[in-house]
Amino acid sequence: MPDLRIINGRIIVRVLSFLLMIESVFMFSALVVALIYNEPVKPILFSALITGIVGVSVWLVMSKQKRKNIGKREGYLIVSLSWVVISLFGALPFVFSGAISSYTDAFFETISGFTTTGATILTDIESLPKSLLFWRSMTHWIGGMGIIVLTVAVLPFLGIGGLQLMVAEMPGITPDKLHPRITATAKRLWGIYVILTFAEVLFLWVGEMDLFDSVCHAFATMATGGFSTKNSSIAGFAPYTQYVIVAFMVLAGTNFTLHYLALHKRFDKLKTNQEFRLYLWFILIFTFAVTLGLLFFVNLGVEEAFRNALFTIVSIITTTGFITTDYLLWPSYIWMLVFTLMFVGGSAGSTGGGVKIVRHFLLFKNSWTELKRTLHPSAIIPVKFNGKPVSQDIIFNVMAFFLIYMFVFGIGIVLLALMGYDFETSIGAAIASLGNIGPGIGGVGPVENYAFFSPLAKWFLSFLMLLGRLELFTVLIIFSRAFWKN
Amino acid sequence: MPDLRIINGRIIVRVLSFLLMIESVFMFSALVVALIYNEPVKPILFSALITGIVGVSVWLVMSKQKRKNIGKREGYLIVSLSWVVISLFGALPFVFSGAISSYTDAFFETISGFTTTGATILTDIESLPKSLLFWRSMTHWIGGMGIIVLTVAVLPFLGIGGLQLMVAEMPGITPDKLHPRITATAKRLWGIYVILTFAEVLFLWVGEMDLFDSVCHAFATMATGGFSTKNSSIAGFAPYTQYVIVAFMVLAGTNFTLHYLALHKRFDKLKTNQEFRLYLWFILIFTFAVTLGLLFFVNLGVEEAFRNALFTIVSIITTTGFITTDYLLWPSYIWMLVFTLMFVGGSAGSTGGGVKIVRHFLLFKNSWTELKRTLHPSAIIPVKFNGKPVSQDIIFNVMAFFLIYMFVFGIGIVLLALMGYDFETSIGAAIASLGNIGPGIGGVGPVENYAFFSPLAKWFLSFLMLLGRLELFTVLIIFSRAFWKN
Repeated sequence: MPDLRIINGRIIVRVLSFLLMIESVFMFSALVVALIYNEPVKPILFSALITGIVGVSVWLVMSKQKRKNIGKREGYLIVSLSWVVISLFGALPFVFSGAISSYTDAFFETISGFTTTGATILTDIESLPKSLLFWRSMTHWIGGMGIIVLTVAVLPFLGIGGLQLMVAEMPGITPDKLHPRITATAKRLWGIYVILTFAEVLFLWVGEMDLFDSVCHAFATMATGGFSTKNSSIAGFAPYTQYVIVAFMVLAGTNFTLHYLALHKRFDKLKTNQEFRLYLWFILIFTFAVTLGLLFFVNLGVEEAFRNALFTIVSIITTTGFITTDYLLWPSYIWMLVFTLMFVGGSAGSTGGGVKIVRHFLLFKNSWTELKRTLHPSAIIPVKFNGKPVSQDIIFNVMAFFLIYMFVFGIGIVLLALMGYDFETSIGAAIASLGNIGPGIGGVGPVENYAFFSPLAKWFLSFLMLLGRLELFTVLIIFSRAFWKN
Repeated sequence: MPDLRIINGRIIVRVLSFLLMIESVFMFSALVVALIYNEPVKPILFSALITGIVGVSVWLVMSKQKRKNIGKREGYLIVSLSWVVISLFGALPFVFSGAISSYTDAFFETISGFTTTGATILTDIESLPKSLLFWRSMTHWIGGMGIIVLTVAVLPFLGIGGLQLMVAEMPGITPDKLHPRITATAKRLWGIYVILTFAEVLFLWVGEMDLFDSVCHAFATMATGGFSTKNSSIAGFAPYTQYVIVAFMVLAGTNFTLHYLALHKRFDKLKTNQEFRLYLWFILIFTFAVTLGLLFFVNLGVEEAFRNALFTIVSIITTTGFITTDYLLWPSYIWMLVFTLMFVGGSAGSTGGGVKIVRHFLLFKNSWTELKRTLHPSAIIPVKFNGKPVSQDIIFNVMAFFLIYMFVFGIGIVLLALMGYDFETSIGAAIASLGNIGPGIGGVGPVENYAFFSPLAKWFLSFLMLLGRLELFTVLIIFSRAFWKN
């Protein structure tokens, strides 16, 4: 029997209710879009009101309680539950407007947005009102940097518990502190995020995109989400726009600590950061290989081949999922390179999903070192990252992470197959959801969508997205027996 | 630049030449079969003579040297090279007889035999002379328990270096010592192997098989190899024969230390061995699931469904690769359960290939423990196996093993795809070779063969088989820089 007394339930409910208030404010911004474009306001208004009223009333009821610090257990529960709760409420506009008739579909679309997966069940995206498309892109943007990080930035009462929450939500291994105070670190992260998003809006707007599309695509790019406002994703836009999006996808997949250092002219740190260098090498080498492949085996001009290769590689490695071309139409040995990148992911401390570059770096280096250890069993040979030895504990954690990741991936394939989907579709949907990518292979290729999945499969894929976004441990730990024992 | 002076090359060549003498003796046994069945003797006679003469002459030249102990480096080189060398010579009978016209094909068939993979390039197995079929099955039997282990058993001069060699050749984590003296341990292992093979011959002979088929199939079963003398593998034999083979596959996939203990009536050790229990549970649960699946979705009688399920599950988990039915014709969610088992493998210290049950046990338990460690970072929580805590070093080694295994598997898929094979075939051939299974999925399904691969692909798959049989480290370490530096 789980011992519920060890959990401080009130503090959890209180933070969740505050998150709903924040979500309500974001929803009201979509209301502005509806007013500008003369679209029906009721669906969004009602959604925002319900979300806000639930948030405020629960907050008021709970605020009578004495202030208490947030422990580890509360932290994991708050972070995991918050992503479920904001998705449950975030789905309301789609349902109330009738744009998505089934609640399961609306929830799938919303959690796919918040987790920056970008897998869609919509078959005709352009038929949606602009206000809903805006809300859809906004879910990406909120989820990209994280609603918890935002909360820590604006909610001083979280105190030292805030660090715990951020660790549980942020991707990567050990979060860098940009400032001794956690609130200040969270503010700086969101600050950089806003600045970069703003910059991308400007660059896109200068091109062929109107302001609305620029904002929506900037949201989706900076969050490495992948929702577009167009049925053909980015394929219909000019090369200029495509290159701008590539540049900002690369930035979004970079550790935001490096952006902070770059803003403070600490460029030396960028040059020596091994994860950043490996990230750029990955992009360079894979783009080169795919470009070559396309030139030899597909009839394309050099610029077009290079652009399609670069765009696809960057879109997949950063787990954004924007598309300019159907890579599954390429020869299989080319799209399998793309498939390989689905297991790589962005940098730690970026908005990108997946396993993350730094983990691969440590795994690879440690495996190689293990060969040396076999030869010299008594010697202690540490793995170094950015010039510093990495503790055994971290290596252990990274290895366990990757194993559980592959295990969940395997279980995902088997369960999807049991639900009746074919081999490639099961593989594609499992990794595209768990890695927060969006497009996969098989039936969920770049020009397909997730509409055909059964409700059960959609809830399962939603769970995979959540596991991926919160990097497994935060969610899985709740299901362990130790969590519920004192 | 590699520093060649740190390697004692002469001792390596000397051991290799002794292995050729042993191989020559085994080849002469195939000559007896040729004489009995009135088949051409020249191909095998010449092969045995060449192998023997090369072995004896090199041995004589090298024996002038002073006796020296075998170091770690020499050990890894001896074991890796020995498997290549015996395959190079073992291919001769196929080439000399004209049964396999290309040397690449003959080498592939031979190393597939020695590594107990059982992947064949033969399209009509039954057209081969019995003496060649016997030699083909014999390569399995030699490779199953290991020619190095055999050498240690019969060659006292190896001294303490023998332990090093056996560790490098034997599958598993830490080899159990059946006797303080390594020579005695090796003798006991081969003794049990011979007894079990003999028992299986008797059980098969009692049924419909003649003595020749009984011996060949016993060789292939006890080595978890999978070469049959029939084109349809085991499908054409009666249920009795199939059940006998199932029983001996299960025994072959069990740690031979347990057989030794059972022979000494230490049955308590069997009951409490966690790897053995997990192994049986795997077989039980998967057989149950597949039987159920077959009953519901395929029109089969209960006994036939159960028998096909049991046979396939046992054949794949032990990495034998015998076939009674084409599992790829089953619904995909059923054969994907079979596919999952390709990543499991037999027990440590058995003749089975793959990752091995004990590694999965430790990986799974450690990953779960890692969740606990996240909750209590300062506590030291060890993973236990058979009631004893497992050292961090071993866990580290197992994790590195699995990661390199999956990495090699991934590289394998990409390289095969680059050579022009489709997704499923690339996956199937990579895991079936690396896991020493034989049949895979796609173009290398249970009723297919490996004839269609290009020579380059065949050499690459041969390398994967070697990597799998020697459990990666023994081979890979030779390619590390540290190996060639003092």
